[in-house]
Amino acid sequence: MSDTTKDTIASRLSDLREVMRRERLAAFIFPSTDPHCGEYVPDRWKGREFISGFDGSAGTAVVTMSEAALWTDSRYFLAAGEQLAGTEFVLMKERVEGTPTIAEWLGRKLAVSDTTEVGIDGMTCPAADVDTLRAGLRANGGLTLRTNFDPLALIWKDRPEAPLAPVELHPVEYAGEDCPSKLARVRAAMRERHAEGMLVSSLDDIAWTLNLRGTDVHCNPVFVSYLLVTHVSAVLFVDSRKITDGVAAYLETCGVELREYGDITSALRAYGEYNILMDGSLTSHTLYNSVRTHGRIDTALPITAMKAVKNAVEADGFRRAMVRDGVAMVKFLCRLRAEVERGGLTELGVCRLLAGYRSAQPLFRDLSFDTIAAYGAHGAVVHYEPTEGTDTPLEPRGLLLIDSGAHYLDGTTDITRTVALGPVDDEQRRVYTLVLKGHIALSMLKFPHGAAGTQLDAVARAAMWREGMNFMHGTGHGVGSYLNVHEGPHQIRMEWRPAPLLPGMTVTDEPGIYIAGRFGVRIENTLIVVPYMETGFGRFLQFEPLTLCPIDTAPIIPEMLTDEEKRWLDDYHARVFGTLSPHLEAEETDWLRRATSPIG
Amino acid sequence: MSDTTKDTIASRLSDLREVMRRERLAAFIFPSTDPHCGEYVPDRWKGREFISGFDGSAGTAVVTMSEAALWTDSRYFLAAGEQLAGTEFVLMKERVEGTPTIAEWLGRKLAVSDTTEVGIDGMTCPAADVDTLRAGLRANGGLTLRTNFDPLALIWKDRPEAPLAPVELHPVEYAGEDCPSKLARVRAAMRERHAEGMLVSSLDDIAWTLNLRGTDVHCNPVFVSYLLVTHVSAVLFVDSRKITDGVAAYLETCGVELREYGDITSALRAYGEYNILMDGSLTSHTLYNSVRTHGRIDTALPITAMKAVKNAVEADGFRRAMVRDGVAMVKFLCRLRAEVERGGLTELGVCRLLAGYRSAQPLFRDLSFDTIAAYGAHGAVVHYEPTEGTDTPLEPRGLLLIDSGAHYLDGTTDITRTVALGPVDDEQRRVYTLVLKGHIALSMLKFPHGAAGTQLDAVARAAMWREGMNFMHGTGHGVGSYLNVHEGPHQIRMEWRPAPLLPGMTVTDEPGIYIAGRFGVRIENTLIVVPYMETGFGRFLQFEPLTLCPIDTAPIIPEMLTDEEKRWLDDYHARVFGTLSPHLEAEETDWLRRATSPIG
Repeated sequence: MSDTTKDTIASRLSDLREVMRRERLAAFIFPSTDPHCGEYVPDRWKGREFISGFDGSAGTAVVTMSEAALWTDSRYFLAAGEQLAGTEFVLMKERVEGTPTIAEWLGRKLAVSDTTEVGIDGMTCPAADVDTLRAGLRANGGLTLRTNFDPLALIWKDRPEAPLAPVELHPVEYAGEDCPSKLARVRAAMRERHAEGMLVSSLDDIAWTLNLRGTDVHCNPVFVSYLLVTHVSAVLFVDSRKITDGVAAYLETCGVELREYGDITSALRAYGEYNILMDGSLTSHTLYNSVRTHGRIDTALPITAMKAVKNAVEADGFRRAMVRDGVAMVKFLCRLRAEVERGGLTELGVCRLLAGYRSAQPLFRDLSFDTIAAYGAHGAVVHYEPTEGTDTPLEPRGLLLIDSGAHYLDGTTDITRTVALGPVDDEQRRVYTLVLKGHIALSMLKFPHGAAGTQLDAVARAAMWREGMNFMHGTGHGVGSYLNVHEGPHQIRMEWRPAPLLPGMTVTDEPGIYIAGRFGVRIENTLIVVPYMETGFGRFLQFEPLTLCPIDTAPIIPEMLTDEEKRWLDDYHARVFGTLSPHLEAEETDWLRRATSPIG
Repeated sequence: MSDTTKDTIASRLSDLREVMRRERLAAFIFPSTDPHCGEYVPDRWKGREFISGFDGSAGTAVVTMSEAALWTDSRYFLAAGEQLAGTEFVLMKERVEGTPTIAEWLGRKLAVSDTTEVGIDGMTCPAADVDTLRAGLRANGGLTLRTNFDPLALIWKDRPEAPLAPVELHPVEYAGEDCPSKLARVRAAMRERHAEGMLVSSLDDIAWTLNLRGTDVHCNPVFVSYLLVTHVSAVLFVDSRKITDGVAAYLETCGVELREYGDITSALRAYGEYNILMDGSLTSHTLYNSVRTHGRIDTALPITAMKAVKNAVEADGFRRAMVRDGVAMVKFLCRLRAEVERGGLTELGVCRLLAGYRSAQPLFRDLSFDTIAAYGAHGAVVHYEPTEGTDTPLEPRGLLLIDSGAHYLDGTTDITRTVALGPVDDEQRRVYTLVLKGHIALSMLKFPHGAAGTQLDAVARAAMWREGMNFMHGTGHGVGSYLNVHEGPHQIRMEWRPAPLLPGMTVTDEPGIYIAGRFGVRIENTLIVVPYMETGFGRFLQFEPLTLCPIDTAPIIPEMLTDEEKRWLDDYHARVFGTLSPHLEAEETDWLRRATSPIG
């Protein structure tokens, strides 16, 4: 970190403390969330980064009059350590024994403070998190929490505006269902829950319901807004400068009124229905508590489960998008080996090369997340993204892990391949084959209609458990239809997620193994849930792999695969070759033929 | 049902309605629970059976001034239909579409009643169930619930007394830990939960803590009592006629005071500690609400999780008991085929024959549950127990399912074998082999320390899911150490059970498939969780099968087994033969040699 940056952080902390003194606040807390509680935060709400300099996706900064600390999880220990060096901020390692909670730390630090009030901006923190924090502070020395004050409004001089890019129509030829039909289904679901109204804060839920898309959030095709739905009205709160005449006219035909984004708080204060449905874990504390109504129905929004089940048009869109994405991946992989042998290609070069092939595809819109290209030991850092500081040249040996994806108008992709750039050792081959066995086992699994992902998770892990190995991330998540690459409510993971798997749901299959300091392997396809059979025992489901791209066979130890696993791989590769080869150049077709030749 | 029984039920209903009229109660509800909320109920508390005539383990009778209905689940549809025939009781099939809940039914039936109060004996129903019922009644027409009145006290003339059998010491040579040590651990766990006191209602939790056993409950070696523990006292509420001088002296040395069973309510009213730990789902409503204290900590008792982890002495006891149980099983199986060929043996005859071999074993105390011997189509009735009315002679063909177990002083057993009595058809062989594949897959699984049973459940089902088959019961439950055959908190099942699997826990492995009207297959061993390996990824665990008894190889389709599955079966059988043969007669040894010969 440069001295300038250090000085900048020091000066911001000094400004903040000046404001805190005036407001008689003993401490202020900056979470990583924003008013819409999404995964990625627009620049305007990167307050935690502004005050601390730490730019990871998860972390909470806490500042008292004399000290400052930042909590983050193991993914970011290294990066946070570097970015905080030279500042006042002390790194607090979450889920490491001995690390105090924020409330415990504040309880100790403020034990002799003459004020006991702590601040947080309730507009940028979910209601459920504020409740937990408030209870923790009370239990640690009776600290109180103020939520209606945002010091950044005073001290952040050049604070970015909320994004102003125009909102776009997402045509029904891709969405498969028009907005009035979706609104009718949403209202029917509200009626089932006896809800008179519903506040939608999650940007992808709004985009799905209205068949609109935007570019406000990095890699997520959504736009900053709120949607308030009752049985007789639907109001979209959005900056009017983002709404073209065409979109305004479209919304009118859908029965959706427009109001300014900033009006949401007063609209909630004036809300007149008997009750309101909101998800307290995804709705800002301030908005959650702005509504004056008889009852809050605090539960997951029905939209989330509806959006997860892709209709036939969306499913076909996914299949078409996967052909184009597979073509881009094959062109990239075909070129990769040659570039590595020529020398000079780095991890960042991989990201650029692959993005180039993808962006040349029809209907391409954007990457669906920042590409992870992790060579050698970087592959063991689960959320590694190469930067100028870490970028490494690739050499013709070892394993390169590439986790990437794109948005196309007709579908979103998410794929991980781990490829041998040259010779690999026995441990690498053993680990690679165990991950592949897990990937295949889940992909082949048949299961009862409505099983939860948690029930299926072990199938992807049993082979590696037997060798005393495991991975600490989820095995699968939903993928949006030209929407966010991470979508709920279903997941496949060790922790309990009750949402049932249903036909039409997309879900990734991405087991991995990470050997710290050496290498990492992950193999990921996006799958879609489809019917399998119906018997006297009920309906059964199976997965269809949507992703079309060869899985590197070089690092496989064939003797570790069963005949059935080999057959799965050969069948998958035959389908990949048959589907992609008509779209490739001769040289690429030759490469793909070799890459997909049977191992059986 | 005889006319006498019909007349008896009619007369009891008439007596009940007389009392209800006097008490101005519009309806009365008789659940299947008792003051200790256990699985089996002593005769004194079989009020639902008294009023309805239905004797299944699960069911709720509801009586209004003019109607009567009984709710039960699919296991008992047939039996309940027969037992209620000719009475006023209408059968209500739980979890069948269109069946109203008790609250919905009462809401409709009492819509024009001039009283709106419903009664239930709060002493025999868990607090959590009463809360749910009360909310349901309120939502269905504003009905209210009275819980402090037991009409059975007036109308059940020859009501059985609570059992008076003497309480017995369970020596530390079998228990492996003495009572003061257990009490110290229990109090430490209370301290962790900030609990000043704890009410223990579950009879097996009391028996485990005090190293005492009884014979009050059918097949469960427990005695009717309550235990109230604080940091300075432990009071056992039990009928003093059941306590010998020896047990009284023993309890005194353990620091446990004795009070009469009936004193529990007044003791709770006089309870003076700051708070109390109780499990509202396992504590009677009346007792739960008798305590006047500042705080109730409503959570699972720490005893349940402690009891589930067997110490080394208990684990060795299990291993020894399993040898004796295996010898009894082999003697029985060896004799079975001959008896079937001779003719005349029935399902009840099987129960008697097997019980005879078991009771001849050293340290035998009792059966651990009523033997299920289910021939042919009876095998598809999951909780079938033969009665005089259903008893069927065995013929030299088809499948016999035997689920049985015993209590020995040093351990409790639970084993299911399905055996071919002669020729079996292809469907029977296919189903049998699928169940066996599931059994073996779970038995061989390695898994991370602390995984929950729900995470592992699919492993036992994946093979049958692939064929569109499934079973609707749990895959595994804990087994007590000379205690109840069904023990928590861990389970292996589709529904979420968060309790982690830990070394020393016993758990059954009992997948099955049931083809209604034709046959059923279940294969069950009791396993114990033991360490597997520790690596950079953490600690891993595995299962050791405790049960020692051949698995019938005749119905197996060998081509459906992998080499690894065949190896597992051969290895298991070699261990069974090696361990049991020294304890058998020559003829039995010959039979066992054939039964355990390799199929590989």
